[in-house]
Order: sequence, then structure tokens, then C-alpha cells
Amino acid sequence: MTVYSLVHLRLVWCCWTLPRWQMNGHKRPLAVWTSATAQWTLKQKKPAELYRIPVSRPPILSGTSLLGKGALSTTSISPKEVMLTSERYGVQRLPFSHVSDSDLTFFEHLIPGRVITDPDELRPFNVDWLQSVRGCSKMLLRPRTAAEVSEILRYCNKRKLAVNPQGGNTGLVGGSVPVFDEIIISTALMNQVISFNSVSGILVCQAGCILENLNQYLEELDFIMPLDLGAKGSCHIGGNVATNAGGLRLLRYGSLRGTVLGLEVVLADGSILNCLASLRKDNTGYDLKQLFIGSEGTLGIITAVSILCPRKPKSVNLVFLGSPFYILIETSGSNSAHDEEKLNNFLEHVMASGLVTDGTVATEDKKIKMLWSLRERITEALTHDGCVYKYDLSLPVERLYDLVIDTRARLGKTAKNVVGYGHLGDGNLHLNITAESYSHSLLNAIEPFVYEWTAQYNGSISAEHGLGFKKKHYIQYSKPQEAVLLMQQVKAMLDPKGILNPYKTLPASS
Amino acid sequence: MTVYSLVHLRLVWCCWTLPRWQMNGHKRPLAVWTSATAQWTLKQKKPAELYRIPVSRPPILSGTSLLGKGALSTTSISPKEVMLTSERYGVQRLPFSHVSDSDLTFFEHLIPGRVITDPDELRPFNVDWLQSVRGCSKMLLRPRTAAEVSEILRYCNKRKLAVNPQGGNTGLVGGSVPVFDEIIISTALMNQVISFNSVSGILVCQAGCILENLNQYLEELDFIMPLDLGAKGSCHIGGNVATNAGGLRLLRYGSLRGTVLGLEVVLADGSILNCLASLRKDNTGYDLKQLFIGSEGTLGIITAVSILCPRKPKSVNLVFLGSPFYILIETSGSNSAHDEEKLNNFLEHVMASGLVTDGTVATEDKKIKMLWSLRERITEALTHDGCVYKYDLSLPVERLYDLVIDTRARLGKTAKNVVGYGHLGDGNLHLNITAESYSHSLLNAIEPFVYEWTAQYNGSISAEHGLGFKKKHYIQYSKPQEAVLLMQQVKAMLDPKGILNPYKTLPASS
Repeated sequence: MTVYSLVHLRLVWCCWTLPRWQMNGHKRPLAVWTSATAQWTLKQKKPAELYRIPVSRPPILSGTSLLGKGALSTTSISPKEVMLTSERYGVQRLPFSHVSDSDLTFFEHLIPGRVITDPDELRPFNVDWLQSVRGCSKMLLRPRTAAEVSEILRYCNKRKLAVNPQGGNTGLVGGSVPVFDEIIISTALMNQVISFNSVSGILVCQAGCILENLNQYLEELDFIMPLDLGAKGSCHIGGNVATNAGGLRLLRYGSLRGTVLGLEVVLADGSILNCLASLRKDNTGYDLKQLFIGSEGTLGIITAVSILCPRKPKSVNLVFLGSPFYILIETSGSNSAHDEEKLNNFLEHVMASGLVTDGTVATEDKKIKMLWSLRERITEALTHDGCVYKYDLSLPVERLYDLVIDTRARLGKTAKNVVGYGHLGDGNLHLNITAESYSHSLLNAIEPFVYEWTAQYNGSISAEHGLGFKKKHYIQYSKPQEAVLLMQQVKAMLDPKGILNPYKTLPASS
Repeated sequence: MTVYSLVHLRLVWCCWTLPRWQMNGHKRPLAVWTSATAQWTLKQKKPAELYRIPVSRPPILSGTSLLGKGALSTTSISPKEVMLTSERYGVQRLPFSHVSDSDLTFFEHLIPGRVITDPDELRPFNVDWLQSVRGCSKMLLRPRTAAEVSEILRYCNKRKLAVNPQGGNTGLVGGSVPVFDEIIISTALMNQVISFNSVSGILVCQAGCILENLNQYLEELDFIMPLDLGAKGSCHIGGNVATNAGGLRLLRYGSLRGTVLGLEVVLADGSILNCLASLRKDNTGYDLKQLFIGSEGTLGIITAVSILCPRKPKSVNLVFLGSPFYILIETSGSNSAHDEEKLNNFLEHVMASGLVTDGTVATEDKKIKMLWSLRERITEALTHDGCVYKYDLSLPVERLYDLVIDTRARLGKTAKNVVGYGHLGDGNLHLNITAESYSHSLLNAIEPFVYEWTAQYNGSISAEHGLGFKKKHYIQYSKPQEAVLLMQQVKAMLDPKGILNPYKTLPASS
């Protein structure tokens, strides 16, 4: 463990144009501040539970037209009030078949008792976590095995029925819910651990395992998952892989492109692609699994995952530091005395140099969790600030915060807050702009400004959230035309009828 | 740094059924043994130099027919004596065009002075490092830029001229030399560093940079390359990426699938795919660069690479331990006192438990290099033992050595030595079988036995060497038919005329 090398650190940079107390000029010592803010955090809720929160805010989006504008998220709206995606964005339904009675009969025979058609039960699966997009699917299927998914897709492909693969439905770009009446294929019942090898640390499990459950399972065996994110209590590992989730451990353990060793995927025509290898090295042909990592369910449905898991660290330290920014630095190692010595050297260095003016160190689990929750729940906290315009950008580290400053200057008083936080070590900025209510002119002031700014510095307009439904039209800011064309060819090759998660990730071929 | 966690270690397991002194029963203390064997190592030679070594051994392969048998390597043969691949393997030339005078005129106009047609100059580029395969290319092109590669491929694709992309020509599976008269496109003059960012550690360079040169360049800036291998003095980074090279740092810094952040690739039709991003996170569409990593030049020619480089470790320790096996363990960290304390704890533990009976620790650079050279030069050393049958396998760690024992039992006295070494932490076994001379019956005793054994334990028949020419027919031992079919579709999509490195990696579509 070293605190100097970014490669060894899980390091998250948090700067939020700060809540009440700072905006009111209450400059308190950091330790006091952190304990004061602990009350402000809410319990993490699964999506289904969120819909039961009573809300008083009126719908703020009815009547607006946002064709081609994807960044808006609306919150504190009950699901009934979320405008249909098709209406809000003026999307045309593609000529897929409609679900018929004979289709229902087929699926009920195939997976009896696991076909949901009740509108009330379907509701939470049609709306995203941010309550910003809504589909009108009339059927949700809950297969338990890859063989069942295979039968489902073979049938859907033949019938030209569109499908929407869905994990924990925690995505932020509208990729995880239907746009129209796509059949939702939930991975929720594919939730079994298949094997774990405590010599190699390789876990093989079904796609519907919840990330937090896997982590708990592993912790008992002295291992941890190589990824961690705020949605861990709900998100499925299959969805994590399908969206190439980043999160809080990326800096320490690398991306899923390195840690995912194998996948089982069902293709659009129902064929099962078994690349569920549990090997660190395998150079036999092209690495097909990489096509599916980050493809957001548009190329196949991931049904099982083989993933390399690190040992549970014996010693963990968390530092929360403040100067112009707040920063969380977590170290993990095998010897607490060594780690503390290194950390103290680092802290002495940054305090002496004036880089850091204040801070607190946590070693006990409870305090570590509390400090992390401050960071992990910013997304949720922002929803209480009104209407949120969300951006997830990769930028050269040295440019990371300039965009916040430039955006703030550009928007002036038309925005309530311009908030920048994210992952310093990864060069990942979460730019959030809040306003009392939605305004078309504000959106026009933000877009394409933010995308152009990002493209100017060769950044990515989606660092870790993906493109989903909301950002597919902005891909050209980060990828050249040749790349987009090639992606469209890949899509056409793997899913010629386009039944898999349509209207997502890529703009339509011209 | 922790010596207990495999994830943190660069750990190589070496067991060779030992050279002379041990076979003669000279059981010496390890320290003596290592210094004694230091004389035995040879200076690393670049492929071109190797051909100048005078050899006395007569050709051992003339007249044999090995259709579909790919593991044989012959050594100590001068290039003139290496049998043509087409003859030895009975391969049929595909109906590509032949290079004409007007082609020569075109290329000499495009890259004046960088078109090689002299047979003597061409010779080393037609033969692989192991001197086991030989093509008969009549033209080698040395472009300096992606634009030049683009012009070359556009022309070749139109003319249906087959090409063989070549880096340092250090591959072990016959992937880097022509099979017939393919035009060799060398990356040797594309050897410029484009940029290095000392905040992020991201290096962008042309494909023809030699790995060791890059590492030296980075060391001066307090960084290192995330990969290291025995061929570092000759191999090109573009070739490393094209073959998804593993090597000695994989356990510590992960595979190229995680560390390569971007690629510039010229496709078969000459279009330039610029995915040369320098971002840790980028979720804008499918990760196309992964298709080219490990595709062995069959999908495009990599012209530039963006790669994440770790900080140069402040403290490095190397331990060489012996019990039933010899093992090298390298630790790297930021604090030598901490690292030594951890290492001593580990050594006390393994000595007390009886796992290890003898060993030596090295901290100074010279001794570290000397110990590593023992490992790195086994490949070369084996060539002095006669005819070598080479296999590069991934296996579950707990099964790694069983194959050596089983093979030894199976072959009995028909083999001179059955040697197993490799990378314990990666589960990568290099199985080498030596004999005085080539024998068809010995090969039949080895194959398909070794592949079937590997497949039985869900291993990979090529861990890090790739499939190249020699192993393409064995892909089905590690990949299901659906995967091979999909790979063939990918190949057909990206290179419809099949001009890129033909006869390699994939079996022909049926």
C-alpha cells in the first residue's frame, strides 16, 4: 500500500457547492461538520420502495418537449406522473410485433408463475430510478436459467417482439426500462452463486445476483468484490457488467474489462454463447466477452459472470480532507501499522505544504461507512434540490474542475447550484446542475455547451453511466464516425432484427 | 504491498527438470547453484543476430509432414534450412494477387526508400524467432505513419494483396511471419512516443516502439511499463497489444485489456479507426479496441497505443525459493522497511511450515536482474536441449503441475525432458517437451493428449502466446463452436477479402 501512488488508492474527489450550512457561511471544523451532516443522510432504498414515498411536489415536466435532449432527471414525482418517454421525447415506435394472447400462452407454459402482466406489479419496472423515463411494457418475464432466456429470445426473435433486459433498474441514463412496450426480461431470479474458488479468487455467479449480496458472501470467505457503487443494494452484477459500471473501487482494482474473466450470454436468436472461462489468461481467438461488457443489453443478455475478486484487505483507512475541495482517500493493505505510518507521512506532507487545511481519519468500520455514505448518497441528496440536469464526464485530471467553474460562470443565476464531484483518480466528473424547476432555456444553455467543452479536451461524455436512451445522440462527441459505423455493424451482425433493448446506446443507422 | 495476497505479487513459478548438474545428482546449496548457472545464460539476441550463429546440427525436419500439428519448434537451424511453412504443413495458397511491378512502383512512390525487396534483407523477416516457420515474402514495407499504413492497406485491399503485419517478430506460434508471399508491413519505423502525462501515467506512442525502450524512457520519468517479458529487447508495443501479451507483470498490474486505454488501428479497407483515448473511463458505446487486442493482426493493423503506466516502485525485492519447485517472487512497494518486514514474515512462515527449504533474497538491481534472467531465458535454454515441443496453457492453479507429471508418465523415455514452468499466480503453464530429434510418433503421443487434458479442466490451450499459424486448428479445445463462428463473422465483417494476416488465428469458415 502506498498513499502516493494513485494506482494503489481508491480515491474519490467530492466537491459539492455545499449544502445549507456552508452556503449560509457556517464554516465549522471538519469533524463537527461531518457528524452534523450524518443526520442528513437517508436510508438507501430499493427502487420499488421509492415509489411508496409520499411526495408533495407537483409534476414539473408535463407539456415540455425535449426531443434529443437527454440529460434531464426529474425526481420526487410519483410514477403515475412520470411522462411517457415516447411522448416526452417524441420517439416513433419501431415496427415490432405486439404481444398477443398466444404469446402470453407460450410464455406461461415456458415459465409458469413467472410471467407478470398485472399493471400495478409492472409499474416500478417501467420507470427508472430517477423517475425520468417511463415505458409501457405489458409483460415482464422472470427466467431462472440461461436455457429459459434462450427459449424466450428464440421465440421473440422469430416473432419480432422487442425485449428490454433489466437488472436492478438503477441506471441513470434510461437504459434499463422500456421505451414503448418491450417485453421486460428481468434477471432477478437468476440469483445463484455457481462457484467460488478460494485459491484463485474467481467467483462464478448468475447475472441477477445483487452486488451487495455477493460482497457479503465473499467477505465471509475473506474476499471482496472488485467493484463497489452506491446502488450496490439493488444493482445486479449482470447489469453492472452490461453497463461496464465503474464506481468506487475502479482505481484500486481496475475496470471490469480486466476483472471479468468470462461471460455466458444469450444472443438475440437464442443461441447461448458460453465464454464463462475462469482463467486469468486466455488467448484463444478474439475476446468476444468484451463486446458485451458495456453494451447495455443491446447485443445479448448476460446470464452469468465469472469475475476475479481480490482478498479482503486486512487494514482499511479512510481520510476525509478539506481545502478548496473535499476529498475522500481510502487505503487498503495487509498491515495496519505500515498503512498508518504511510498515511501519516502523507498527511504531514500535505498539511505542511498547505494543500490540505483540515481533515479527519477513520479506521473503524462504522465511521468509514458514515463518511462513504456522504459521498455515495450525493445523487440522492441532489434530487432534493429540485430539478437536476446530470452529466457524467471523463476529463484529463488537470482539467477536471474547470468545467464546473466555466459552467457556473456561463449559467449565472439561472441555475440554483452547479455541482461537481466524482472520482479524482479516474478523471471522472459528475456535473450536476440544479434548478427550482425545469426550464427549456436552461437546458439549451447547458447543452451542447457541456458536450462541446468535453470534446474539446478529448474527454468522454459518458464516463461510467453509459449512453442508454438519454445520451445515444451524443456519442459523436466522444467517438469518431468510423467507430459509430462499426458499432452499428456489430449491432446488425449480432441482432439483425434489432429486438434487444431498442432505442438505446447507438443512434439509428442512417 | 503484501506478500500474502497474490493480487499484489508478480510471481513466477519455475520448475525445470533440471539441467546437467541436478540430473547428475549434484545437489548444491541454492546460492552456489545460482551463481554457477549464471555462466550458462547467453546474451539476449535480436532475431536478426540469431541467424548469424554458426550451427552444426543438420536439418531435422525435411521430409516430415505435419499437417495440422502445430506445436513443434526446431532450433539451431540456419534460416536457409528452415523448411517453408507451406511445404511442411501442406497449406494451399489462397487466391490473393501476386505482387507486380506496378505494385512495386506504387509503394516506392508512396514510401520512397522504405520498400525492401532484396532477398538477403528480407530473409530474417520471413522466418520466426524459433526458426520453425518460414514464408517467402518478396516485399517488406516500412511505413512511418498511420496515414501511410492507410494508403498501403487501401491499395492492397483493392488489389487483393495479402499482408502480414510484423512487429519485433518474437512470437512463438508462427503468427508474425508470412505463410506464403504476403507483403510484410513492419511497424519498426513507427517508433515515436507521442505523449506522456506524468499526472495520469498515460503513455501514447506509436506501435513500433520497442518495449524495453519504452520502459527505459518511463523509468527516467519515475514510471514503468505495466508489462514485461523476456522478448522486451526486440518486441514492439503494437505487437504486444495485437497478441495480448501476458508476461511477468500481469499479476501485479493486470492484463492489457485493462491497461490499454486506446488504440489507433488501420482497417483492411484503409480506414483509420481512431480510438486513441487517454481516459480511465469511457462508456460511450461498444469498446471496439478490445476486438483488436489479441487479434494477432487479423482484424486491423495497430498503429498507436495509449496505455496506463504505473509509478516506478520505490522498493523492489526478489525472492528465489526452492522445495519441490523453484519459485521467484517479486514484491514492489513504496517503503523498503515495510516491504522487508512483510517479506521476512512471509519467509518465516513458509520456512517454519516446511513449504520452503532453501532460498535467497535479492534487493540490489544486479542480483535481481541475474535471477530474473534465469527465468526469462528458459525458452532460449531449452532450444539447446534439441527438438522442443512447446505448449502454453492456462489451467486451474491447483491442477497446474499435474499435466507435467501426467505427460512425463505418458511419454516415458521417448522424451528427453518434460519441463513445466510458467506463472503460478496466473495459472499459466509453459509445458515443453524435448527430444534429441523430431519424431512423428512422439508428437502423436503428445497431441491431442495435452489439448484434451487441458480441455478436461476447462483450461486454455493458449494462455498468452496466441494461436497464430500453429495453433489455430486447436481453438475448439478452449472455445465452443458458437464462439468460433462469431469470431469468423467478426473477421468477415472487418476484413471481407481476408487480406490481413491470412492463415492465422481462426480455422477457415466451413
